[in-house]
Amino acid sequence: MATLIEPKVLKGFRDFLPDREAARLSLVRRLEQVFRSYGFAPIDTPVLEYAEVLLGKGGGETDKQVYRFTDHGGRDVAMRYDLTVPFARFMAAHLGELALPFKRWHAAKVWRGENTQRGRYREFVQVDFDTVGTDSASADLEILLLMRESFLSLGLGGVKVHYAHRGVFNAFLSRLGLAGQSVEVLRAIDKERKIGPEKTREILAEIAGGENADRILAYSRVEASAALTRAKLAEAAASDAPGAKRLAQIGLALEDIGVADTFVLDPSITRGLDYYTGIVFETFLDRLPGIGSVCSGGRYDDLASLYTSQHLPGVGASIGLDRLMAAMEELGEAGQATAGPSVLVLMLEEGLLAEYHRIGAAFRGAGIPAEVYPEPRKLAVQFAYAEKRGIPLAVIAGSDERAKGAVNLKDLRSRESFDGLSLEDATARASALLR
Amino acid sequence: MATLIEPKVLKGFRDFLPDREAARLSLVRRLEQVFRSYGFAPIDTPVLEYAEVLLGKGGGETDKQVYRFTDHGGRDVAMRYDLTVPFARFMAAHLGELALPFKRWHAAKVWRGENTQRGRYREFVQVDFDTVGTDSASADLEILLLMRESFLSLGLGGVKVHYAHRGVFNAFLSRLGLAGQSVEVLRAIDKERKIGPEKTREILAEIAGGENADRILAYSRVEASAALTRAKLAEAAASDAPGAKRLAQIGLALEDIGVADTFVLDPSITRGLDYYTGIVFETFLDRLPGIGSVCSGGRYDDLASLYTSQHLPGVGASIGLDRLMAAMEELGEAGQATAGPSVLVLMLEEGLLAEYHRIGAAFRGAGIPAEVYPEPRKLAVQFAYAEKRGIPLAVIAGSDERAKGAVNLKDLRSRESFDGLSLEDATARASALLR
Repeated sequence: MATLIEPKVLKGFRDFLPDREAARLSLVRRLEQVFRSYGFAPIDTPVLEYAEVLLGKGGGETDKQVYRFTDHGGRDVAMRYDLTVPFARFMAAHLGELALPFKRWHAAKVWRGENTQRGRYREFVQVDFDTVGTDSASADLEILLLMRESFLSLGLGGVKVHYAHRGVFNAFLSRLGLAGQSVEVLRAIDKERKIGPEKTREILAEIAGGENADRILAYSRVEASAALTRAKLAEAAASDAPGAKRLAQIGLALEDIGVADTFVLDPSITRGLDYYTGIVFETFLDRLPGIGSVCSGGRYDDLASLYTSQHLPGVGASIGLDRLMAAMEELGEAGQATAGPSVLVLMLEEGLLAEYHRIGAAFRGAGIPAEVYPEPRKLAVQFAYAEKRGIPLAVIAGSDERAKGAVNLKDLRSRESFDGLSLEDATARASALLR
Repeated sequence: MATLIEPKVLKGFRDFLPDREAARLSLVRRLEQVFRSYGFAPIDTPVLEYAEVLLGKGGGETDKQVYRFTDHGGRDVAMRYDLTVPFARFMAAHLGELALPFKRWHAAKVWRGENTQRGRYREFVQVDFDTVGTDSASADLEILLLMRESFLSLGLGGVKVHYAHRGVFNAFLSRLGLAGQSVEVLRAIDKERKIGPEKTREILAEIAGGENADRILAYSRVEASAALTRAKLAEAAASDAPGAKRLAQIGLALEDIGVADTFVLDPSITRGLDYYTGIVFETFLDRLPGIGSVCSGGRYDDLASLYTSQHLPGVGASIGLDRLMAAMEELGEAGQATAGPSVLVLMLEEGLLAEYHRIGAAFRGAGIPAEVYPEPRKLAVQFAYAEKRGIPLAVIAGSDERAKGAVNLKDLRSRESFDGLSLEDATARASALLR
């Protein structure tokens, strides 16, 4: 016999076993329902693209995280490392075919050669949703409402969406004469949640001097009410009066709609990326604030300028599905989805093959997932299989039952038996037991 | 301004626009429901694996269709080219964690550097389902029943599943002294549907002589009834009496269950691959037989012998989703899934932002997907957007309506208007109009 090959997976990659994959699918399905209810449409793009398309002209040479190689045709190709860049390329390619504003969601795998020592994965799923082709307050508001409803649908308890306005922050920094250092300042503020205010002040003082550090920290504080924070930002906004007005529109609408409890106007939210120009936001679970933001994003001024001269402002967010799944597992919410059926039809005699499959079909016809144990093995073996898969009910029927047109139903959790039922009564009883 | 990058995709790769992606998702969801109703569990495996795992030791050097490269860590890696090999690796890796028999389905992309001139794609979706860890007739039967129900659930009209037994065919060839030429003979038979019986006879005569060619063609013919075909095969089976018995068990059970109409015992079905040892099958759409098999598979003796010494017999099938989607588009069945919402709330005045989103929420709360047009543009622009996205209903409400607590609902298909409705009446009316 040839030597066996070790069935190992690459570092940073994972198999998903049934219960976990069922939980992941259920998560995506629930999000999908909310996206659709808001009129967001699904799209898909290729996993492999021209490296130039994903990384830009000349650039990206240094990006060691991207899986990039030469294909059989000598093309320089790469696996997508996020869903935003392919979406930008998609918009540029299909502008003529799409109604603007265009709203899409996309749940798919992306790949990055991350350092696995920090517990990061090299293959993971992102769930993105964006509205492009409008810079309206309504689109910002809709994304916020959608985020709120998405998390409600997952049954993870309360969430808080912290939001701010990147343009207002930039205007504030300009007024302090810190426009040139805005990236460093934003990065420092972004880290405050992790490193604390004192360390942040030290870093800011180094960048901008002690007085400005205090001003920046005062700016970034959440005030006693959203109205007070808004007033502070309106003053700080200076040249970005439209930004302050936008924040007011959104904040008042959230109050008017009656969902303001979920939202915190939090000027410390900046999002590191240069890319954002308007509202920015992050989402924290009330029960697990420590895991960080589970859904982040913001408004950008131009999505696809690398590929088209058409101006495409937009607003969007991304859910890190793996972090969310880890949270659900920690909260014990992931067990709701089980991969097994509800009924196991035991095989007592192989000669009754057709009979067993007819019984299975009757349960499925009543909306109850059911399978037939495929071999006439000892009952103990068949019960052990049911237990290992978490199947709650068993149907037991041999020649005697068949002659009487009856089956026996057993609840494997309570060990209660219901004998001599007609098939119709058995499916009704099973429905009741599974409720 | 920098030169724009052309937003093109690689040859053989495709974007999926909303309507098509919605159709694809809906297809997978419907299949998923059937799989689950039969107790098949979802799994997932990495897109990238060690090349050795996917291609075997030493082998595969010549396989130009596989996307294979060296990653940052110097590992020889490859993108999966099917779902069977990763499943075998998965089973070997997780034997201790899984209940046997193990039934799984997996719908995912695979990649092959196919010749695109024949209209083939290099990125496509496979949907596989297998039962491993049992060589029982019940598992064979269940896969056949599942295939039937899967296609019924897609609303594509009738299907015919043609099945045969590879072991019986091999035994028959051995008796003719053709065991050594079995691969060539099987390939010739496999092509008969395409090249016709005469050309097939020529090829067979070259391989096996004229007399044997006639015997093989007689063997592969479908007789007037399944019982007659079974009798012919039982005689031909010779040393593979268990194979003939298996065919009889399955055929009689299909009749007993009352679904025999969907199945054709067709000895010309062989499946080219050496891999199969028992029952083999292919599926044809009654309305589009010419597109070839949309779901094929069979029983194999040992799934994971490359990775484990544990014997894992199984039976499984694979649906080519792209061929199936092409068929649905040809049959006009794909349009059922639309990517747009059912209601567009028009924006007449931006000051009523919160009001419009409250109206949208009321429709969503009644189970009706609804979105707010994000800008207070001319009504003609907003109606054109609704038309382009295929949104059937619009809600029109300005300050006057708001003062009265009323909205106007318009059916954009019939141009009928329902004015001055309460929000509750409007959602009820919309439900009725959408039924």
